[in-house]
Amino acid sequence: MNNEDIKKLLESVKNNEIEIDKAMKVIEDLPYKELGFAKIDNHRELRVGYPEVIYCAGKTIEQVVKIIEFMLTKNNNILATRATKEMYEEVKKICPEANYNELGRTITIKKRSDKTTNSYIAIVSAGTSDLPVVEEAFETAKILGNRVEKITDVGVAGIHRLFSSLDVIRGAKVVIVVAGMEGALASVIGGLIDKPLIAVPTSVGYGANFGGLSALLCMLNSCSSGVSVVNIDNGFGAAYNASIINKL
Amino acid sequence: MNNEDIKKLLESVKNNEIEIDKAMKVIEDLPYKELGFAKIDNHRELRVGYPEVIYCAGKTIEQVVKIIEFMLTKNNNILATRATKEMYEEVKKICPEANYNELGRTITIKKRSDKTTNSYIAIVSAGTSDLPVVEEAFETAKILGNRVEKITDVGVAGIHRLFSSLDVIRGAKVVIVVAGMEGALASVIGGLIDKPLIAVPTSVGYGANFGGLSALLCMLNSCSSGVSVVNIDNGFGAAYNASIINKL
Amino acid sequence: MNNEDIKKLLESVKNNEIEIDKAMKVIEDLPYKELGFAKIDNHRELRVGYPEVIYCAGKTIEQVVKIIEFMLTKNNNILATRATKEMYEEVKKICPEANYNELGRTITIKKRSDKTTNSYIAIVSAGTSDLPVVEEAFETAKILGNRVEKITDVGVAGIHRLFSSLDVIRGAKVVIVVAGMEGALASVIGGLIDKPLIAVPTSVGYGANFGGLSALLCMLNSCSSGVSVVNIDNGFGAAYNASIINKL
Amino acid sequence: MNNEDIKKLLESVKNNEIEIDKAMKVIEDLPYKELGFAKIDNHRELRVGYPEVIYCAGKTIEQVVKIIEFMLTKNNNILATRATKEMYEEVKKICPEANYNELGRTITIKKRSDKTTNSYIAIVSAGTSDLPVVEEAFETAKILGNRVEKITDVGVAGIHRLFSSLDVIRGAKVVIVVAGMEGALASVIGGLIDKPLIAVPTSVGYGANFGGLSALLCMLNSCSSGVSVVNIDNGFGAAYNASIINKL
Amino acid sequence: MNNEDIKKLLESVKNNEIEIDKAMKVIEDLPYKELGFAKIDNHRELRVGYPEVIYCAGKTIEQVVKIIEFMLTKNNNILATRATKEMYEEVKKICPEANYNELGRTITIKKRSDKTTNSYIAIVSAGTSDLPVVEEAFETAKILGNRVEKITDVGVAGIHRLFSSLDVIRGAKVVIVVAGMEGALASVIGGLIDKPLIAVPTSVGYGANFGGLSALLCMLNSCSSGVSVVNIDNGFGAAYNASIINKL
Amino acid sequence: MNNEDIKKLLESVKNNEIEIDKAMKVIEDLPYKELGFAKIDNHRELRVGYPEVIYCAGKTIEQVVKIIEFMLTKNNNILATRATKEMYEEVKKICPEANYNELGRTITIKKRSDKTTNSYIAIVSAGTSDLPVVEEAFETAKILGNRVEKITDVGVAGIHRLFSSLDVIRGAKVVIVVAGMEGALASVIGGLIDKPLIAVPTSVGYGANFGGLSALLCMLNSCSSGVSVVNIDNGFGAAYNASIINKL
Amino acid sequence: MNNEDIKKLLESVKNNEIEIDKAMKVIEDLPYKELGFAKIDNHRELRVGYPEVIYCAGKTIEQVVKIIEFMLTKNNNILATRATKEMYEEVKKICPEANYNELGRTITIKKRSDKTTNSYIAIVSAGTSDLPVVEEAFETAKILGNRVEKITDVGVAGIHRLFSSLDVIRGAKVVIVVAGMEGALASVIGGLIDKPLIAVPTSVGYGANFGGLSALLCMLNSCSSGVSVVNIDNGFGAAYNASIINKL
Amino acid sequence: MNNEDIKKLLESVKNNEIEIDKAMKVIEDLPYKELGFAKIDNHRELRVGYPEVIYCAGKTIEQVVKIIEFMLTKNNNILATRATKEMYEEVKKICPEANYNELGRTITIKKRSDKTTNSYIAIVSAGTSDLPVVEEAFETAKILGNRVEKITDVGVAGIHRLFSSLDVIRGAKVVIVVAGMEGALASVIGGLIDKPLIAVPTSVGYGANFGGLSALLCMLNSCSSGVSVVNIDNGFGAAYNASIINKL
Repeated sequence: MNNEDIKKLLESVKNNEIEIDKAMKVIEDLPYKELGFAKIDNHRELRVGYPEVIYCAGKTIEQVVKIIEFMLTKNNNILATRATKEMYEEVKKICPEANYNELGRTITIKKRSDKTTNSYIAIVSAGTSDLPVVEEAFETAKILGNRVEKITDVGVAGIHRLFSSLDVIRGAKVVIVVAGMEGALASVIGGLIDKPLIAVPTSVGYGANFGGLSALLCMLNSCSSGVSVVNIDNGFGAAYNASIINKL
Repeated sequence: MNNEDIKKLLESVKNNEIEIDKAMKVIEDLPYKELGFAKIDNHRELRVGYPEVIYCAGKTIEQVVKIIEFMLTKNNNILATRATKEMYEEVKKICPEANYNELGRTITIKKRSDKTTNSYIAIVSAGTSDLPVVEEAFETAKILGNRVEKITDVGVAGIHRLFSSLDVIRGAKVVIVVAGMEGALASVIGGLIDKPLIAVPTSVGYGANFGGLSALLCMLNSCSSGVSVVNIDNGFGAAYNASIINKL
Repeated sequence: MNNEDIKKLLESVKNNEIEIDKAMKVIEDLPYKELGFAKIDNHRELRVGYPEVIYCAGKTIEQVVKIIEFMLTKNNNILATRATKEMYEEVKKICPEANYNELGRTITIKKRSDKTTNSYIAIVSAGTSDLPVVEEAFETAKILGNRVEKITDVGVAGIHRLFSSLDVIRGAKVVIVVAGMEGALASVIGGLIDKPLIAVPTSVGYGANFGGLSALLCMLNSCSSGVSVVNIDNGFGAAYNASIINKL
Repeated sequence: MNNEDIKKLLESVKNNEIEIDKAMKVIEDLPYKELGFAKIDNHRELRVGYPEVIYCAGKTIEQVVKIIEFMLTKNNNILATRATKEMYEEVKKICPEANYNELGRTITIKKRSDKTTNSYIAIVSAGTSDLPVVEEAFETAKILGNRVEKITDVGVAGIHRLFSSLDVIRGAKVVIVVAGMEGALASVIGGLIDKPLIAVPTSVGYGANFGGLSALLCMLNSCSSGVSVVNIDNGFGAAYNASIINKL
Repeated sequence: MNNEDIKKLLESVKNNEIEIDKAMKVIEDLPYKELGFAKIDNHRELRVGYPEVIYCAGKTIEQVVKIIEFMLTKNNNILATRATKEMYEEVKKICPEANYNELGRTITIKKRSDKTTNSYIAIVSAGTSDLPVVEEAFETAKILGNRVEKITDVGVAGIHRLFSSLDVIRGAKVVIVVAGMEGALASVIGGLIDKPLIAVPTSVGYGANFGGLSALLCMLNSCSSGVSVVNIDNGFGAAYNASIINKL
Repeated sequence: MNNEDIKKLLESVKNNEIEIDKAMKVIEDLPYKELGFAKIDNHRELRVGYPEVIYCAGKTIEQVVKIIEFMLTKNNNILATRATKEMYEEVKKICPEANYNELGRTITIKKRSDKTTNSYIAIVSAGTSDLPVVEEAFETAKILGNRVEKITDVGVAGIHRLFSSLDVIRGAKVVIVVAGMEGALASVIGGLIDKPLIAVPTSVGYGANFGGLSALLCMLNSCSSGVSVVNIDNGFGAAYNASIINKL
Repeated sequence: MNNEDIKKLLESVKNNEIEIDKAMKVIEDLPYKELGFAKIDNHRELRVGYPEVIYCAGKTIEQVVKIIEFMLTKNNNILATRATKEMYEEVKKICPEANYNELGRTITIKKRSDKTTNSYIAIVSAGTSDLPVVEEAFETAKILGNRVEKITDVGVAGIHRLFSSLDVIRGAKVVIVVAGMEGALASVIGGLIDKPLIAVPTSVGYGANFGGLSALLCMLNSCSSGVSVVNIDNGFGAAYNASIINKL
Repeated sequence: MNNEDIKKLLESVKNNEIEIDKAMKVIEDLPYKELGFAKIDNHRELRVGYPEVIYCAGKTIEQVVKIIEFMLTKNNNILATRATKEMYEEVKKICPEANYNELGRTITIKKRSDKTTNSYIAIVSAGTSDLPVVEEAFETAKILGNRVEKITDVGVAGIHRLFSSLDVIRGAKVVIVVAGMEGALASVIGGLIDKPLIAVPTSVGYGANFGGLSALLCMLNSCSSGVSVVNIDNGFGAAYNASIINKL
């Protein structure tokens, strides 16, 4: 409800085209609209095609199914992250067209064929063990309507593999780098490109890896200037971020 | 040296227009040129107007002066971060037009009047103690050619102050949030805007703040999806990042 | 045994109304009575109706059943926290009126109908994954005789949801805020109310959440002045605290 | 602006008693008023007599003086924490009646003689090195209008000293416990009283104290149920909290 | 092999009573004997009756059985710690008189009836969840030939329980205090007795307990002077230490 | 005040040899005496010759002087730890016979010539940088009336130096091991002796030493069974502990 | 492709023995060859007989089998670390000569009988629980073609066992020390030998061991100069390192 | 004293050429000789020309001067690390030929012209702030008689600088990599060379660098197999290690 809308409403009141009680109702809702919480949230979804996102960890199968059941009544694409296969099996019963990415642990339901972006997000990863995070980022970026390129297994232990893919990485509008262990890949790519780079530390590794802490600290201390970081294993967050940037 | 260049070289060899030894020399250099490191770096600076950046911490006054002396021979804007007042005094002797931001500890030298962006970066901060980081980010963003809006002292302890500035924040192309203590401001703004948000935890606080760790962890675990994080007190890094995004 | 009692005792000794040996016995016991540990503890329970609380973690089913069996001989309400369903099944056999809150993992047995307070405790939580802690706090507050209002799922990622419930929160005598991830909700509410706020960090989250450390540090460093904190996931402790305050 | 106000406004519009532009202006302001941020904040101060609090750490002497200069134009008591003696000397020049607590590093200016509470806050501390935190809490509680009792140097290494003061502690409406090293005093007192207890870990100690971490963890893990915790060395926060409770 | 032995050997060489080759062999062994490693170790066992101790964690059932099988050929008491019930079942087959303490996870085999000490070790614990560590300490102290008194469940949340047992604690020659959560019991007892106190932090607790870290730091920072600390949950180490002291 | 004293008091009351008011006064003090806090503390000092100990860190010079001034009125030896040279200079003015150990930062005043123990405490240290902690332990042990042997600079990097002193170490009744860096010396000696060993980690080292954490963890995890640990750099605590054991 | 190769290629072009397009193809690949990534990697394997190494953790059985299936087509020895028994069972089906080291969790396939080195690597370990890491290092060193000597169970708690094996340790060209708990063995051996020493901290231990952190910090802070460290439990990395040194 | 020596001694005893008392004396010393501690240490120095090394941190100027004064009486090269300029000024008075490396904080005194190795150690560093560690390593390696090549400022933010120096790095027998911040340089070089690599994390950086922890964890978790690590800022240790390897 923009300023024009308010003006019209007041003119309707003046012209007796609307009852005062009804007008009051509308204005009562105004604060949130004026602050733009609920409404703008709705607008945003319609406008940019962002699906509702369900974080399944810590939810029961029943809860996940009920949420999706409700969301199916709306015309939005649906994304559920950290979903178990059991969750998917139950979701499939009420929505046979639901897709499951086993590695990435995502359920996606495409209800609208939104236009995909021309520019693309590059998702670069260091090792094969980082693939679950890559896949979560991939599914998130796709359902949000982005063109995506994956470049996997280009860790710095064999840096020449990275150079072979440098053109694809440099062609992206925004780059996601997924790496565990020492997470050095983010710094190396950050020094080679001129685009925003979102680094995702993964919990891949052992010993003094401390559940991803080593990669996290490494990325936060990157000597390359264009690197920002999201939480450990947070493929969804990285892709959500990248999508916002890709659509600027 | 692109494919066309290589073809020509080989034809020259075939036609005896160039000696094998010389051709070998050229091809020997190929890798670095093909990877395009040094050269592209130079191009990048000319193209996007990014100045050389000198991180002064751990450098002597003499070193800083010498580096700037050399850089003054090139036609680039100059930015030095974490610079002491003593450094500035010496720099001023060789470059009277140098500026010093005491709070932000930056030396800037504007050698070219590059066009400023139309879109702007919003730098939002929680408390007055976060201002040094804000100023470092501000000077960085300005010298990189960005339009910048500062919104300071809108921490969540008095959240209504934030709402008064929401329009300015929402109008930005990219938002930097600078906050110490519990760093909650990043999450709150992240839930209210639809733009990339770069969070900078600061070391402001005491006790269980542990030098910025509390704000850092808070921001990394933000429940708002569009938040990415840079190192504690890293105003420069946030602004560098934001500048890349603002110029997309 | 107060000063008057001692005086009487000594007069009895003087008047030969009591033997020295017996008087010695009484005085030997004096310290504990004067310090009033055991007795006052008993009095306290009768007076404020606080049930015995059994922390079941690390106890066997048999131990839990035996403790409850003994407590059933007293006229107190009973609360057992961190109880498994198996524990409840066995408790039910000896006390069919026992209730089990599956989410909150509590067993409660109401043996007395104490008056409920007029003022109420508000329990506010950020996300659905925080509900187990909310339920533990809820059951604790109820069995301690408090009126309780729950406001769930008002995390700062969608802060307008919080504002809709602000009146209920402000009407409470004391507020419990339960939040995981970055725990920012405590700071935001702390800036909006004028009542004691007890923050409970939860272990909800992943990666750099480090088992609730991020929310804990966030809450300890809250920029809002009226916030105090209990241990991670300690819904019981928060409610016990809130009950003491609510009954002041 | 309540519902009645809105109704009147709309009727004025209908009756042409107010121009649409003016009415729009009023409604535009509605959200903030309805959410009641700024206003209620002002009300709260007038109502409960809470002074503005200035956290001096990280502020220059000039900034502190200017803030106090402005605040002197209002009829409120003034409290500045973490203030250096130099700050006080300058403040005294513009306000000779300002007081300085050297140990507690607080500046207080009493502009109104508010009634002091009948009930009191007990501030209990373990050792002499905890006194700066005790004094900060003491000055905060006093300026907020509370009766306060200090019981110092009753650490658990000589627990009989504590028992001598138990009556004073038990007589309080709310108890603040200040302790460094292992912070055991909070648990011991927590097991002896039936009132809210706010624990303040201090950074007193050395070695594996790690800047107050040992006392902080100790207090968070207290086996006594009625203990909540504030940040390390945060005497102000504890007293602010206690004041809210003491005035319930 | 003492000095006298060496003298005799050399005289034997001089008198041709022993061949040089044989004498060389003996002297070759000298270092270890002179340093007294292996031999003295053997002597020590015979002298003080200390059993071999088997730390079962990380060993297979077969390995444990084989070690005990070998040790049964010697006339020593046997102690195995961190033993599973499965291990015990297999050990029992080759040694029916073996005992198993299920709570303490120890296997003990008494092969000699050594005299028990007159002085005793007091093992004091805070809560029922600390009992496994108490039992490990108890079995260790017993098999090493010590008189032991157990005082359990006297945590500081109800400190009067402790005072009832103070005489027993004070009568000991050395005191072991076992406590989890905040571990305050060690400091309180340390301030009440005049004997060596060995504190054992336990991993009992949750949240910011961090696997026993809170109790460990608390005990290391104890304000009571006579407290020394062993590793988290290390009941064996505490009892071994206490036994050495008890037998001085 | 023992049982005999109480009996006498009561008989005096009975025989009118003492007024009831006076007797009441005495009995009022009883609890603390019966719990034996203050009195036994006094007795203990007279009995075992333990001096009062002043921890100077965080105290002003004036405070230290005043405390010592008061203590000089009693017939006890005096020990002040972590004392600066400035403190000593002032103490010397009121007590010329005061001694200062500059390395150990202790002030000692010998007022009584108590008998020194026959058995001795061995203080073993790894490197020269550990000497301040050694000296604090040494002065503490001496003033408490113990015979002491120092064996310094026998770190494991040149383990043969240790073996030369093994006899002296083995002859002690209790051994203190002071070591920084990796603190391995405690484990090595622990495996060679049959006496209680108190390990003191020091903050000597750099980098991943983290202020003594490396030595602390090393000593807590010692594979040698007879090792217990005190706080980092806590030479006083180790010696106090050792003294209790040495006098058993 | 060395310089000679390039010269030949260019001569072929000159002599029309190769078409320009084909020559271009070859030169296009040059950079990587000149940087020596892929090719040199291949050469290195052929030259030093280093097998491909498969890190199985986080890989499915199918993935491991497929990788080995492919590698069997090349004439290299094969090493898979962190392999489960299930993985081995499947590998055996396609390669019956595969060997499994159950303790070390390695699969090895010897396809070539390379010469074993004359000099040897000594692998020294502290306790029996360190054996899995020892075996991983052993298998790695063997398949890489090294002579290896194992000296196990020589922890510092019984240091004389170490001295018995000192000759074997000193005879090695490079020494690997595997130790958990406090990891002191590395420092002790480091002080006794004159060869490179690679220390492997293990996660063996409990309580304040914190998953190997204690041994890691101990080894990093070793007072012996010739010690370098690899990640916790990283037997493979230590042996790979040692092999490089052993073949110098 | 080898076996031959012992045989001769015994024959002398047999032949009455030496008194038993004197022979006993010799044999008494045997253990240490047989274990070869002191002697071998002396031999080692003469043989490999390793100078005594003085770690100056925590030593007084006087102590450093005295140690060097004594060492000047022997014919060894002298190295003092972490030496202040003040120390050097005093040392120069007694030894004018002493050299001081201000950046590396080392004092070196060359008393013998030992042959320098043919093979060389490459010291590679990431940034200019790492130079103090580089210089400490450089001086150490030089005084130990190694040929050294320094390659500085080749951090991964501009990775092409590294590739220009790859030949020099690959030509070394052993490589030291010095890097702060995220320390990624070690992994990158580790993936490009076939030689032992010793990584030195530095404390260069700020914020989440945590005093070098980020670089340390990064290097320990390196995905490149041939990397081992020394303590933060430990340039001396790295060079000492490298020297041992370089002389194999």
